[in-house]
Amino acid sequence: MKRKITIIKVGGKIVEDSENLGNLLDRFARIEGGKVLIHGGGRSATRMAERLGIESRMVDGRRITDSDTLQVVTMVYGGLVNKNIVAQLQARGVNALGLTGADCNIIRAQKRPATTIDYGFVGDVEHADGDMLSRFIEQGIAPVVAPLTHDGKGNLLNTNADTMAAETAKALASLYDVTLIYCFEHPGVMRNPDDANSLIPAITRESYRTLLAGGIISGGMIPKIDNAFNAIENGVKEVVITRADAIDGTQGTHITA
Amino acid sequence: MKRKITIIKVGGKIVEDSENLGNLLDRFARIEGGKVLIHGGGRSATRMAERLGIESRMVDGRRITDSDTLQVVTMVYGGLVNKNIVAQLQARGVNALGLTGADCNIIRAQKRPATTIDYGFVGDVEHADGDMLSRFIEQGIAPVVAPLTHDGKGNLLNTNADTMAAETAKALASLYDVTLIYCFEHPGVMRNPDDANSLIPAITRESYRTLLAGGIISGGMIPKIDNAFNAIENGVKEVVITRADAIDGTQGTHITA
Repeated sequence: MKRKITIIKVGGKIVEDSENLGNLLDRFARIEGGKVLIHGGGRSATRMAERLGIESRMVDGRRITDSDTLQVVTMVYGGLVNKNIVAQLQARGVNALGLTGADCNIIRAQKRPATTIDYGFVGDVEHADGDMLSRFIEQGIAPVVAPLTHDGKGNLLNTNADTMAAETAKALASLYDVTLIYCFEHPGVMRNPDDANSLIPAITRESYRTLLAGGIISGGMIPKIDNAFNAIENGVKEVVITRADAIDGTQGTHITA
Repeated sequence: MKRKITIIKVGGKIVEDSENLGNLLDRFARIEGGKVLIHGGGRSATRMAERLGIESRMVDGRRITDSDTLQVVTMVYGGLVNKNIVAQLQARGVNALGLTGADCNIIRAQKRPATTIDYGFVGDVEHADGDMLSRFIEQGIAPVVAPLTHDGKGNLLNTNADTMAAETAKALASLYDVTLIYCFEHPGVMRNPDDANSLIPAITRESYRTLLAGGIISGGMIPKIDNAFNAIENGVKEVVITRADAIDGTQGTHITA
């Protein structure tokens, strides 16, 4: 039987509120066994870009990353957000190690080719190194991963944190029983975002098609669920989309094959 | 016989010029055996602070670090400078891993108590974990260390990079034959900064006293040499202060007991 590990993806709204972040890190510290934290930080990046007079341009929720913007996300994701989480986890007795994809070459990506849209310095993941990550985990280290990859030619690339979480989970799936928890500010995937009682407790490939066709699921939730299915269909044992106060995975929306 | 490792400290002027940095990283990649790179980045931090409208206040060359300034150095040292170096080393075949003192708790510090001067969030190193660093080195990983420490209570602290280099060298001295190279834009310690032929090839404790008394060594060079003696007197085999194009340690100023 493979050992169980937990991968938590936490989004910007939680990371950027010190009380919410503190609560999340308390819960993360209590998770037993191997664990990985993957964080966003988009709102902080947007604010920092604003302060520096750099315009933030988004297409379908994805940031156009010119070289000035790449500097901002490198600073904010790789430095400000990542290192503060690491320091706060150390204070909670978790031996955290902050990583980007460039560190120990854990996640290599390819710069997305420009088509009708040129996303700039944005990376599509080519390879996540599960062996290297597992070496850290086996030493009792908890990797804390910022949403940055590299191309192996010296360039950092901005990469969607949900995707990084799915790729990390997939890379570790042959070595561990992986539970991947996407946590954010909602109870899970909702039929009606305004109705707290409309949580969808489970989504299968089949029910997903129906939900998409009916327009129940739309917008930014689609890539998140696509990432979840990508993980499930590549050996990840369990994917849950849930609120940050429920990272034990007992609540929220369970994505199953 | 202990295995030889090399610790390179590289200052801001080199780190912040892409051609100089590229050359330095080429040379770093060619160093055989275990190696650690420790970098500064003060000028970039000052520029970024300026762009953000945050005043940089220095006392005796040390930065007063209020909470806004701590954010800036966390972004610039821990993110921008560190992660770019890591990505560029990966492109050169070096399995680099970017670290602050908080990562894996490698360098813990104490916030400097306010006396006549309150330096703010500045850390004096309490403990560098040579065992943890050597575990990385034994796995073929080259740690790249940013000048940030943490207090174990969740706070990052700004810490002088020369001091971090000396403390790292000391922590590894019981495990390895450590050579510590401080490299910067000058050929070494000079009798006359304007005369390239006035290099002092070696400094002992005794000659240092004479050089200090005669005013030959002054200003920012004093803490650098104090750090070098601190390392030498705590088991580090060799300390050299030299130009960035001579990190093989054959030139420059050798500090000896």
